[in-house]
Amino acid sequence: MLAVHIECGRVDVREAPRPARPPGFALIRLLAAGICNTDLELQRGYYGFSGTPGHEFVGEVAEADQPALIGRRVVGEINLACGACDWCHAGLGRHCPHRTVLGIAGHPGAFSEYFTLPERNLHILPDTIPTERATFAEPVAAACEILDQVAITPGGEVAVLGDGKLGLLAAQVLLAHGARVHLYGRHPAKLAIAGACGAETFPSGSLPASRYDWVVEATGSVEGLGAAIRMARPRGTVVMKSTVHGDVPLDTAPAIVNEITLVGSRCGRFEPALELLAGGRLRVEEMISDRFPLAEAAQAFERAAAGGVLKVLLEAA
Amino acid sequence: MLAVHIECGRVDVREAPRPARPPGFALIRLLAAGICNTDLELQRGYYGFSGTPGHEFVGEVAEADQPALIGRRVVGEINLACGACDWCHAGLGRHCPHRTVLGIAGHPGAFSEYFTLPERNLHILPDTIPTERATFAEPVAAACEILDQVAITPGGEVAVLGDGKLGLLAAQVLLAHGARVHLYGRHPAKLAIAGACGAETFPSGSLPASRYDWVVEATGSVEGLGAAIRMARPRGTVVMKSTVHGDVPLDTAPAIVNEITLVGSRCGRFEPALELLAGGRLRVEEMISDRFPLAEAAQAFERAAAGGVLKVLLEAA
Repeated sequence: MLAVHIECGRVDVREAPRPARPPGFALIRLLAAGICNTDLELQRGYYGFSGTPGHEFVGEVAEADQPALIGRRVVGEINLACGACDWCHAGLGRHCPHRTVLGIAGHPGAFSEYFTLPERNLHILPDTIPTERATFAEPVAAACEILDQVAITPGGEVAVLGDGKLGLLAAQVLLAHGARVHLYGRHPAKLAIAGACGAETFPSGSLPASRYDWVVEATGSVEGLGAAIRMARPRGTVVMKSTVHGDVPLDTAPAIVNEITLVGSRCGRFEPALELLAGGRLRVEEMISDRFPLAEAAQAFERAAAGGVLKVLLEAA
Repeated sequence: MLAVHIECGRVDVREAPRPARPPGFALIRLLAAGICNTDLELQRGYYGFSGTPGHEFVGEVAEADQPALIGRRVVGEINLACGACDWCHAGLGRHCPHRTVLGIAGHPGAFSEYFTLPERNLHILPDTIPTERATFAEPVAAACEILDQVAITPGGEVAVLGDGKLGLLAAQVLLAHGARVHLYGRHPAKLAIAGACGAETFPSGSLPASRYDWVVEATGSVEGLGAAIRMARPRGTVVMKSTVHGDVPLDTAPAIVNEITLVGSRCGRFEPALELLAGGRLRVEEMISDRFPLAEAAQAFERAAAGGVLKVLLEAA
């Protein structure tokens, strides 16, 4: 089978043996997968990663212990938790200290004709969610995590800082929740997607000070967090969504003086994401900038890293 | 009258006219005042400050609109709020955008034989709280603010990072709340004060990773916040208590991956602080390293900035 391999900044597609399926795992045949900023960072070698990346996928179950899974279209949660620790028992396997992570840490990823994942990580897709749309399940779940962590009043005004993939999905999820969303970004074409969903959009050149009870930082830049803190009202909340490599130079004084709460936010539950994707409110298809066959992963990575590009998909031949 | 004046790093004591008392304000005669790290930062010129500092005080009301105040020993909240905005109406004048701050921003401070403060800022001291003990009302209120912001379970284990004044008061307030406190610091003599109150104390040379649901950062150092984040369990809370000048180089990734909540925390309500100071549980007198008459403020500032020193008081002649 074909599998993407990244090492020392290079993206190759190699012939590799089909992975063995341990008990409790499903063997999954890739249908389509999305390239995430994390994949680009893995390529850049930020985390000492080498191997097969990929964690936003839709696949078809080829083999599994549970017969009901075989032949079904699935998406899957990316954290492979131990299932036995306190975190797992509390339903927070996403924080299991013994976990590996699909395509990120310790478990080969989904940019591969076949890959494995524990059956308990899988969610069967309803027929109402087309495959390309479903590739957004994982990042939409990450956006939904905001609402699991922070009580945002429906009708409340939320600023989203950054019009990349993460910012656009956060804006759409918050709009679906009933919030009034002000999206700040630099790309008119990207802002237009959120605008069509009902967000008010603003250029990020001039940002209002002390205005919002809630600010979602999704810029992916080292300046983003400080800017988000300055936009928050006293006692407001800043959701930290975007990771950046290395140290962020941060003036913490405004956060302390204004008693801002900063909430780190990562992966989320798939259930609310699939519900949203089954409904009509998310305009995720408009976020697909390009599609490549798996064999052309190198070109796909290059395209995904280009300016102005949103989601790039890898698709099975 | 005598008043401390700081400008360009110098601390002088000058003859100055007694301040006029506007309507609604009390004229207060200083009894004793504490030198806070913020005062040392004002001296260093971090905030472009020049004038009379001082915001931790006990005084006697000399003149006031309310006759019941005259002659009484008082402490006072340091934020002079407008009283008319939404923040003020919500009981959060501490965040009033129109506020001035006693001895810090826009209102002359308490290191002065006489100074003024709105009568509504004052709290009459019960006879059970001696004057020196009462100089801790403001910093104890700031420590109590932690409990107003974060729901810490009595019996819960809390790490306090830093054994300076702020760390010791936070540790004592948390102990009085019923928390189990682990205090990390570098000074055996300071750790001993918290130890006598019931804290477990540890050298700060080696810090445990991912151990605590709650971590209070009170180091006053640029390394403190990153260390506190690493000590917090996934989904844990870090209370940001200490301000440092300039940018903190912060790796935000662990906060995001582990979904840590960071809570900026500043001034607090005086009511719980006075209740604690009236009870017997806080060992604040042991934190007084030295006392100087107001006229020797320059020496007092020098002493307060020396290593190993905790609280230095300025006292009326």
